[in-house]
Amino acid sequence: MNYRIVCNILGKVLLAEALLLLLPMGTALLYHESALPFLYTILPLLALGGGLNAVKTRTPDFFAREGFVTVGLSWILMSAFGALPYVFSGDIPHYIDALFETISGFTTTGASILDNVELLTRSCMFWRLFTHWVGGMGVLVFIAAILPISGDHYIHIMRAEVPGPEVSKLVPRARKTARILYMIYFLLTAIETVFLLCGGMSFYEALLHSFATAGTGGFSTRAASIGAYNSTYIEVVVATFMLLFGCNFNLYYLILMGQGLAVFKSEELRVYLGVIAVSVLSIAANIASRVGGFGQGLRYAYFQVTTIISTTGFATADFDQWPELSRWILVLLMFVGGCAGSTGGGIKVSRIIILFKSYLHELKQLILPTRVKRIWFEGKAISDQTVHSVLVFFQVYLTATLLSVLLLTLDGRDIVTNLTASIACISNVGPGLGAVGPSANYAFFSDLSKLLLSFEMLLGRLEIFPVLFLFAPSVWKRKR
Amino acid sequence: MNYRIVCNILGKVLLAEALLLLLPMGTALLYHESALPFLYTILPLLALGGGLNAVKTRTPDFFAREGFVTVGLSWILMSAFGALPYVFSGDIPHYIDALFETISGFTTTGASILDNVELLTRSCMFWRLFTHWVGGMGVLVFIAAILPISGDHYIHIMRAEVPGPEVSKLVPRARKTARILYMIYFLLTAIETVFLLCGGMSFYEALLHSFATAGTGGFSTRAASIGAYNSTYIEVVVATFMLLFGCNFNLYYLILMGQGLAVFKSEELRVYLGVIAVSVLSIAANIASRVGGFGQGLRYAYFQVTTIISTTGFATADFDQWPELSRWILVLLMFVGGCAGSTGGGIKVSRIIILFKSYLHELKQLILPTRVKRIWFEGKAISDQTVHSVLVFFQVYLTATLLSVLLLTLDGRDIVTNLTASIACISNVGPGLGAVGPSANYAFFSDLSKLLLSFEMLLGRLEIFPVLFLFAPSVWKRKR
Repeated sequence: MNYRIVCNILGKVLLAEALLLLLPMGTALLYHESALPFLYTILPLLALGGGLNAVKTRTPDFFAREGFVTVGLSWILMSAFGALPYVFSGDIPHYIDALFETISGFTTTGASILDNVELLTRSCMFWRLFTHWVGGMGVLVFIAAILPISGDHYIHIMRAEVPGPEVSKLVPRARKTARILYMIYFLLTAIETVFLLCGGMSFYEALLHSFATAGTGGFSTRAASIGAYNSTYIEVVVATFMLLFGCNFNLYYLILMGQGLAVFKSEELRVYLGVIAVSVLSIAANIASRVGGFGQGLRYAYFQVTTIISTTGFATADFDQWPELSRWILVLLMFVGGCAGSTGGGIKVSRIIILFKSYLHELKQLILPTRVKRIWFEGKAISDQTVHSVLVFFQVYLTATLLSVLLLTLDGRDIVTNLTASIACISNVGPGLGAVGPSANYAFFSDLSKLLLSFEMLLGRLEIFPVLFLFAPSVWKRKR
Repeated sequence: MNYRIVCNILGKVLLAEALLLLLPMGTALLYHESALPFLYTILPLLALGGGLNAVKTRTPDFFAREGFVTVGLSWILMSAFGALPYVFSGDIPHYIDALFETISGFTTTGASILDNVELLTRSCMFWRLFTHWVGGMGVLVFIAAILPISGDHYIHIMRAEVPGPEVSKLVPRARKTARILYMIYFLLTAIETVFLLCGGMSFYEALLHSFATAGTGGFSTRAASIGAYNSTYIEVVVATFMLLFGCNFNLYYLILMGQGLAVFKSEELRVYLGVIAVSVLSIAANIASRVGGFGQGLRYAYFQVTTIISTTGFATADFDQWPELSRWILVLLMFVGGCAGSTGGGIKVSRIIILFKSYLHELKQLILPTRVKRIWFEGKAISDQTVHSVLVFFQVYLTATLLSVLLLTLDGRDIVTNLTASIACISNVGPGLGAVGPSANYAFFSDLSKLLLSFEMLLGRLEIFPVLFLFAPSVWKRKR
């Protein structure tokens, strides 16, 4: 482990967080709220960040191991500090609660412990929804995009922070890729803000909801979430942008390069849209009689399906009250999640495709062992190693989800609550069913359960390995 | 596909079933019940079986493909005919219900559609519990043990019918292996019968419950299952034999060969016993205050843990009423199941071990790519192909479980009922939670759901591929 370079980058992460905190601090000043909660957070960040940043790197060795550890530690440190403004402002006095809310923000989960979000100060609310935007694309990708670190490091960091089974570099240089990704991210957020302004939202609410959509987070300034606006226009805009932010950002790059038609060749996109279409139609038919016709059914179904598959978690209806078929479809969609290279969580559509293909491959191999070929995906043969990693990922993902429920049961809640809370947190969705349904929140869980669920959110957002790496003793050996 | 040889073996299977039906027919004569329901089933079996058996084989080609198809079709045909006595006797007049009960019997699931089992005729009850015994070790293994088929075929049949990631031949000749397995099976069943007789059971009930324990089935002659006897002695005997029948039969072969000490080197056995010990202690502590102390807790916990992990499904307590932690532990144990090469269902302990090892292996590979070694299990390095198959198996198993729930939801029951029904059927356990809890039954499901659950039972018992094979068009091509 090259400790010096890890410390150096961690220092940059903390300094970047101090910089990002200037925005909610500005909001506080603008709305005549106290800026001190942010100042008191920024000062230790500057001290620690500056100190770590001063560590001189001796050797340039930076491999997958360093990349995973840097990303894992960065997210934990950022969350630990990011929780402070809530505590200092008194908005969330209990630190564990504030930490849960912050990790839920950064990991773009959107699970909340707040009984009434509308009581929050405007500056803390800004920070709360801004964490979604920061976490959506990843703070290390952000740093990689703006700061000069020698080229080799980026790809290992991006591999650990950008979701999906394989990171495809858009351009040969990883740093330029990071810049392009952030540019697309920024642009789409700006466009959504304009659309929401046209729907009659204030600039403050339009911007904040665009942050939350862009990161596929799910926090809202309103207790009733997007349902509070009771506007079909706003619902369709938000649903469509949730769908868009759940797509692989590489596709937008192709469009920017004038290769718009190539987009439709993407297997992942076609499956993603296909799953959405089938789910929307099934749920619309299933709930039609309850919501006053198929048309209204489509409206609710389109919003809830996009909010769940993109793992955002906004709500316009209490789907916990829907019929069993609709509820179960939504639970399955939580597992699926968005596309690789999107800001969405879950297992990811591309992994689901590879899982099903690997099963067909196994079947073919049993039938005709001599004729077995490779598994193809997006026009390329996938290496056995990638298929293996996807299978292991699926296994660890589900095992972690099911085992976590063991600890949650100690709080005495029912199986549906515990199971969907575990799924909704590891998949970064937010709301589940039962006592963690869209009209409820996570406040009732014990501190231990909240820490476990926070851990699951990190596991899901960083796709398991960067987090579990931190617990492997051999990672911490100086020599390899 | 070598159709001739498949037909020939299917003929033998049907003739064997006709032979096996003589036992319940004898029971009918003994207890002065009508023997006609069995006679009317035996006659068409003899006609069709004799006809198929007369098909002469031209080429001896018999590979994995033929093995899978033979096993898949055998189980479907056997169940289709095996359901007839229930219909003819009027015990279960509706054919779909009778089919569900028969498949539940042969697959050793033990899920029942009967509201009151005690109303059954004694001869049908004998057949009902005898199907567990026949299905436990496998009817094709039985045929392989007694009939002369040329040697090459056995191993492909055993691979398809005997549970576990790899079939280890006990002796070089597969046929002799089949004989040894059945001998051990027979012996253990006889010993349990004697133990139960000593506990005051009648010979009829002792024998039938031994059949159901041996196959890890779970049907009982009593509505209250083993709880009806209210005897600690009987509970401990049955629980211990469930534990024993959940072990790999190879271990008993080692003991017979005088290598008793080698048994304790088995990783799978140690993990199996470890999981049982931890589960029993956790549940005993969790339920102690409800059942009158830790001692009583141990008694209930030992029985329910062994009944679930061995996927038998007998009951002495309504664990659906237990606290959430205990309920969830039991749900997880349903997934685990017995050891490979046992009569138990589920994913199997050996696969669970390989799954966890493959995850650690992946972690090591990410940390130190240059130092990666093979995965070891039971003192041997496992081939990448086996690891891959186990991962795919886990994926298909869970995907089938979760997707089946979609169809079950249409019956309008809650998620816990649907989910645990799906798990309990694919894992061949029998009882689940909620409306399919140990004090309830599967009668309320629609015919469509019953067929789906029957399909899941077959999927679980034959470990996915022999059943899914039947749906692959390329399997049915004459030439390869």
